[in-house]
Amino acid sequence: MAEETLKIFSFRRAGKERAGLCVGSQLFDLSWLLCEWPGTEDLELPDFPTVLHLIERGCFGREWLRELWRFACDGSLAESARLQEPVEFLPPITRPQKILCLGRNYAAHAQETGATVPEEPIFFAKAPSSLIGHEQPIRLPALSKRVDHEAELAFVIGKRAKGVPAEKAWDYVAGYTIVNDVTARDLQKADIDKARPWFRSKSFDTFCPCGPWIVPREEIPNPHSLNIELRVNGEVRQKANTADMIFKIPELVEYLSAHLTLEPGDIISTGTPEGISPLRPGDVVEVEIERIGVLRNPVAAESGPTAEAQPASHPKELG
Amino acid sequence: MAEETLKIFSFRRAGKERAGLCVGSQLFDLSWLLCEWPGTEDLELPDFPTVLHLIERGCFGREWLRELWRFACDGSLAESARLQEPVEFLPPITRPQKILCLGRNYAAHAQETGATVPEEPIFFAKAPSSLIGHEQPIRLPALSKRVDHEAELAFVIGKRAKGVPAEKAWDYVAGYTIVNDVTARDLQKADIDKARPWFRSKSFDTFCPCGPWIVPREEIPNPHSLNIELRVNGEVRQKANTADMIFKIPELVEYLSAHLTLEPGDIISTGTPEGISPLRPGDVVEVEIERIGVLRNPVAAESGPTAEAQPASHPKELG
Repeated sequence: MAEETLKIFSFRRAGKERAGLCVGSQLFDLSWLLCEWPGTEDLELPDFPTVLHLIERGCFGREWLRELWRFACDGSLAESARLQEPVEFLPPITRPQKILCLGRNYAAHAQETGATVPEEPIFFAKAPSSLIGHEQPIRLPALSKRVDHEAELAFVIGKRAKGVPAEKAWDYVAGYTIVNDVTARDLQKADIDKARPWFRSKSFDTFCPCGPWIVPREEIPNPHSLNIELRVNGEVRQKANTADMIFKIPELVEYLSAHLTLEPGDIISTGTPEGISPLRPGDVVEVEIERIGVLRNPVAAESGPTAEAQPASHPKELG
Repeated sequence: MAEETLKIFSFRRAGKERAGLCVGSQLFDLSWLLCEWPGTEDLELPDFPTVLHLIERGCFGREWLRELWRFACDGSLAESARLQEPVEFLPPITRPQKILCLGRNYAAHAQETGATVPEEPIFFAKAPSSLIGHEQPIRLPALSKRVDHEAELAFVIGKRAKGVPAEKAWDYVAGYTIVNDVTARDLQKADIDKARPWFRSKSFDTFCPCGPWIVPREEIPNPHSLNIELRVNGEVRQKANTADMIFKIPELVEYLSAHLTLEPGDIISTGTPEGISPLRPGDVVEVEIERIGVLRNPVAAESGPTAEAQPASHPKELG
């Protein structure tokens, strides 16, 4: 029997951000476990370690996490460590120093926006204030008349990277997650037409759904062979495979780290395939990436009720 | 006699980031003072409070800081609290969530770059990893053949701001500082020509010198009447007054916070006046803003020696 994939997540409990561990359908309070585990003595972890604390201390290796899991399952701890649903998910990294995104990194998407296929990576930033977690609502801002979804595979930086050659890039990747690079398409188009920055159309609050999980790097030997699919109200809008990315993760680490220092916890989103389409209040948007999971967010008007408050608009099968 | 301006800064001592207080020519260890002062009991400050901790707790008011200063000067504490030079300055906010910059916010600068004067604010992000402090070297990256200085007045957000109207904007400003919005002009021009993001040309490591001080808002009743000057090796290159800004601080807070949430400690740089010019290894660049101070940085090749190691290139009068 194949071993089940380990996944890491962030959640809120009693007002505090905490780290969680998911194995199969079981969710554990990793922050609590780490307080009990004798293997953490030298790590100088704070009372409530977050996912970022673990990444910064290099505690993201498969073996280390599996050992912790065995500790969780063994004996008297399991009951206390196991989380009962519902869990309030947070973005897996709640306060990254940077969120960098690739533009036009799938040829078919570059073509659908009328752009040429780039000869070198195009990257831009999203504001960290745009991050939301799994199940949190995407708010459509009044300033935009067309807000699109963009399903993307993202990777999380594991250690400080500057001037890293492609052949050493994997050492700097902590793991993989899902990003929906929500975009105010009308503002982006207007700004591009004037050769202005892309930042504002990408950085409205709630425009960066991320999660639910980070899958540690060693759990996914080849991240360039994953099916990626986006559904709106259950209807497939984007469907591709990460094999189609123009610039792959090692080249991206090399290119980005030639420009600036990547910090532990930085999120790099690798671009979206074709099939972008607008979101409307009441929609439920799901991004699914093979071996990682499903990131689901309801869509609401800027200051209207959230979709959760409108159960009629949620088809049962999405629940 | 006019009261001397209070200024806040960040510095490193024994490997720790600490907050400092400057009054006239006297520098105090504010983190140490706060441990001794009885007025902090309800603030839940950590052992080594940083400038961001103070801003987040609303401890940035003139009266509060002046009371702390009187406490520092009075009696037996003064000797222990006073800092002896040299101080290792850090950027006044070492880890802001965002650095947002205005483009083309002085008409004469817009014209010198061949751009039109904008009808609404143009903003973009700089990576927080580009921040350096007073006296730290600007490194010219090998990827660019022309790196320019841009002298700018910046303000620091004091409390979370979303949808703030201009008439209430001042409540959200903690204080003022200086930014040199260093720019890889050749890459920016190439990217603008292709309608690509501005981010990379603005975000190389060391491209955001900031500081040395944050002057609390109440110390500068009108930030739109300040002389601003930039000198390279003592020669004046930029000279203007913040009165010439097209979009003023209240409008900027309104416009930005209509797009996204501004967080305490976010740095908003208000754009540069005309006179941009390239930097070369060995240069020393100084930005002076009336009532705030002088931000000085040597310039070095990406991996060459720093200008500090080449005293011959430092005219004595810049000391």
